[in-house]
Amino acid sequence: MAKSWATLGVDLHLEPTGPHLRRGLTDALREAARTGRLAPGTRLPSSRALAADLGIARNTVADAYADLVAEGWLTARQGSGTRVAERAVVPPTGTGPGPRAPQRPAHDFRPGSPDLAAFPRAQWLKAARRALLAAPHQALGYGDPRGHIELRAALAAYLARARGVHADPDRIVICAGFAHGLRLLGTVLRARGVRTVAVEPYGLEAHWHQLTAAGLRTTVLPFDEHGTDPGPLSDEGAALLTLAHQFPMGVPLHRDRRAAVVDWARRTGALVLEDDYDGEFRYDRQPIGALQGLDPDRVVYLGTASKSLAPGLRLAWMVLPPGLAEEVAAAKGRVDTSSALDQLTLAEFLTSGAYDRHVRTSRLRYRRRRDTLVAALAEHAPDVHVTGIAAGLHAVLRLPPGTEHSVVRSAAWQGVALHGLSYFRHPHAAPDGLDALVVGYGSPSDRGWPGALEALCRVLP
Amino acid sequence: MAKSWATLGVDLHLEPTGPHLRRGLTDALREAARTGRLAPGTRLPSSRALAADLGIARNTVADAYADLVAEGWLTARQGSGTRVAERAVVPPTGTGPGPRAPQRPAHDFRPGSPDLAAFPRAQWLKAARRALLAAPHQALGYGDPRGHIELRAALAAYLARARGVHADPDRIVICAGFAHGLRLLGTVLRARGVRTVAVEPYGLEAHWHQLTAAGLRTTVLPFDEHGTDPGPLSDEGAALLTLAHQFPMGVPLHRDRRAAVVDWARRTGALVLEDDYDGEFRYDRQPIGALQGLDPDRVVYLGTASKSLAPGLRLAWMVLPPGLAEEVAAAKGRVDTSSALDQLTLAEFLTSGAYDRHVRTSRLRYRRRRDTLVAALAEHAPDVHVTGIAAGLHAVLRLPPGTEHSVVRSAAWQGVALHGLSYFRHPHAAPDGLDALVVGYGSPSDRGWPGALEALCRVLP
Repeated sequence: MAKSWATLGVDLHLEPTGPHLRRGLTDALREAARTGRLAPGTRLPSSRALAADLGIARNTVADAYADLVAEGWLTARQGSGTRVAERAVVPPTGTGPGPRAPQRPAHDFRPGSPDLAAFPRAQWLKAARRALLAAPHQALGYGDPRGHIELRAALAAYLARARGVHADPDRIVICAGFAHGLRLLGTVLRARGVRTVAVEPYGLEAHWHQLTAAGLRTTVLPFDEHGTDPGPLSDEGAALLTLAHQFPMGVPLHRDRRAAVVDWARRTGALVLEDDYDGEFRYDRQPIGALQGLDPDRVVYLGTASKSLAPGLRLAWMVLPPGLAEEVAAAKGRVDTSSALDQLTLAEFLTSGAYDRHVRTSRLRYRRRRDTLVAALAEHAPDVHVTGIAAGLHAVLRLPPGTEHSVVRSAAWQGVALHGLSYFRHPHAAPDGLDALVVGYGSPSDRGWPGALEALCRVLP
Repeated sequence: MAKSWATLGVDLHLEPTGPHLRRGLTDALREAARTGRLAPGTRLPSSRALAADLGIARNTVADAYADLVAEGWLTARQGSGTRVAERAVVPPTGTGPGPRAPQRPAHDFRPGSPDLAAFPRAQWLKAARRALLAAPHQALGYGDPRGHIELRAALAAYLARARGVHADPDRIVICAGFAHGLRLLGTVLRARGVRTVAVEPYGLEAHWHQLTAAGLRTTVLPFDEHGTDPGPLSDEGAALLTLAHQFPMGVPLHRDRRAAVVDWARRTGALVLEDDYDGEFRYDRQPIGALQGLDPDRVVYLGTASKSLAPGLRLAWMVLPPGLAEEVAAAKGRVDTSSALDQLTLAEFLTSGAYDRHVRTSRLRYRRRRDTLVAALAEHAPDVHVTGIAAGLHAVLRLPPGTEHSVVRSAAWQGVALHGLSYFRHPHAAPDGLDALVVGYGSPSDRGWPGALEALCRVLP
């Protein structure tokens, strides 16, 4: 039962309740901005005023605004309210609805996924066979809420060796991906009385969402050339940080700041949530050990198989300070939530050395891609400055001021899926004046890479 | 840092915070009841009074009481408060701590698990190989929050055929086991404004816990020879019911009551949560189709692979009324939480017919066990009346009044793990005067079954 509202001079077709309402509002506002019915620069009513106008909850409007800020359609600046972003408006052509960018991009540079074509299917199946045939029957039952001991033991050994993590299998909890782990931690922190978690000004809305969905507020730290600045940390109950390789900016946190973060946590009793999403992929620089090794009592280490193997495994892990593992297991609903077969297979993969071999091969593949990316940019887009490439599966391409949105849009029309830096900016982040692209070079297949790179160079200014 | 409190004339050693507190209190009270320091029949202080005495949250005391009622150490009766159960007290022998039943029972009759030794490992690995080698690369990425379309489509076809479920793949959501699904539904119901869910007087504390953890209250329906009585249903937002085979009592809900449940849901806009945990295993009687087929708009159908295959898969599914699938996906954190490999393998298992073959084989195996159980009881324990055996993986053995607790305890001493009916009674259920055992005959292996059955007969009165 959609309702129509004429507000802002724009028709908003809205479902009366549920997630449809937020989505309907977001879609209607996006479409109005896209077609120019809401002109660039237009100041939108406050979320309170629009909510009252539409007779809906203020949070729904605020969420829709936040979504559109994250997507780059709106801008939110302290003191000047929410405005329609200054961007190239695509006018509808003809009489019907305007043409749209193709549903599935020909080339996908959105970061977050490794090369799925390189998933070691044959080795994985071999490990699965060995693991399943060796498993005691009991391993197929309702498991330990923390996850299977075989995997927790294998991870403890691996993380100590590869990332300097102080890991005890009893304090490891397996979860169904990083987002699931973050939601569990959010729930536990909220139950402990925490109200606010400090986050970086750049990151993923999907992660901030897990914290807010658990009832927490996020406050945004400042950022400069040394990375995220922990200076303003005060009475937040926790800080979520990508320490080894800021996502997506790509800088490692300065040594002094690492120490300052730990000091703050010790002083105030807060927790540091260390998101080590791509710790395995370092190229030119000395490996940066996990912060958790500095203070296992105050740092929660979070790692994932989503970048090193595949997101579809839905396997991630947390190494927790004493006492917290039981609370996280309780937040899981006191049951294991991850597949016994995949857990046992990953344990076998780790202990047999297949994981290390796969990471080494992947590291070489991604390093080659990075090198060809840098070389191609130097040749075809000499004005574009590349940063954040010492590690990881993505690079940041600085663009001439004011060009980010038009580059992203024109790329989309040419079948190249890209996110601008604004996609990763927290709605409450201070303005940085940066125009940039975040280019994930992990996702294309080896075979598709040369063509993808060529297409990328074509859309750059 | 444990603290000691002398209260009720009993020393309670308690951790000051967190889940330790509840567990410490539960352990201390259990130990006091076990050793007779709290004599059978002793009335405990109200949870409010004890909480004030200990300086802890009232909920913690109420939860500890509820745990111990569920375990049978305490009884809670309307009007007469919480008392130490009348049961055989095991006095400590010697001077040290009393001897304990062995950690791992020789024979496990606790219901809830199928025969894990019968998991079709070879066929599963074959299906996994076929599924993984055929899967497009994209299937290994971040999936649809509802779960993989291959599995949702295979389930829609299977559930329509086998259980009469009105299933559309778009309205199926895959979850990491029944408990996870119930937690998600609880979260969605709570967000929709529901405060109370009606439950049956017998069931699993772990399930009621998912609802209360989501912020809901449970109200308890009455029960008689026709099953759970929906008569008192009024303004509850939902009712959680095991319709085809009440867990653990084993009766199917009477036809008139099935109709009454649907009528209530239609009249009030409430939802029925149909827990079809063992719908595949029926022996003597006509199959009972899922209630969901009567009104897909008001009934949420929940099924699981935990009984038909193995709990370790952590795969269950919900078929949801229109609109609800998106809310449940949002409650999942907008990401899939189940293994892509297991989902694709189960889809292959279903579409290839391997699932049907496995269910048929299992049905024969469990039916044979049930028949030998019934025959052995008739011979060795003629006073024990068996009920609830037309379907499922467990039977209810009625005992002479007042003997349940002593049978369960003496069985434990002889290495036979059993739950009495009181283990499954809701803390707020009306007294039923029933003494019974709930005997899960799924869990022992085929090889272990004769010995297990013999051990069971030995411990019966």
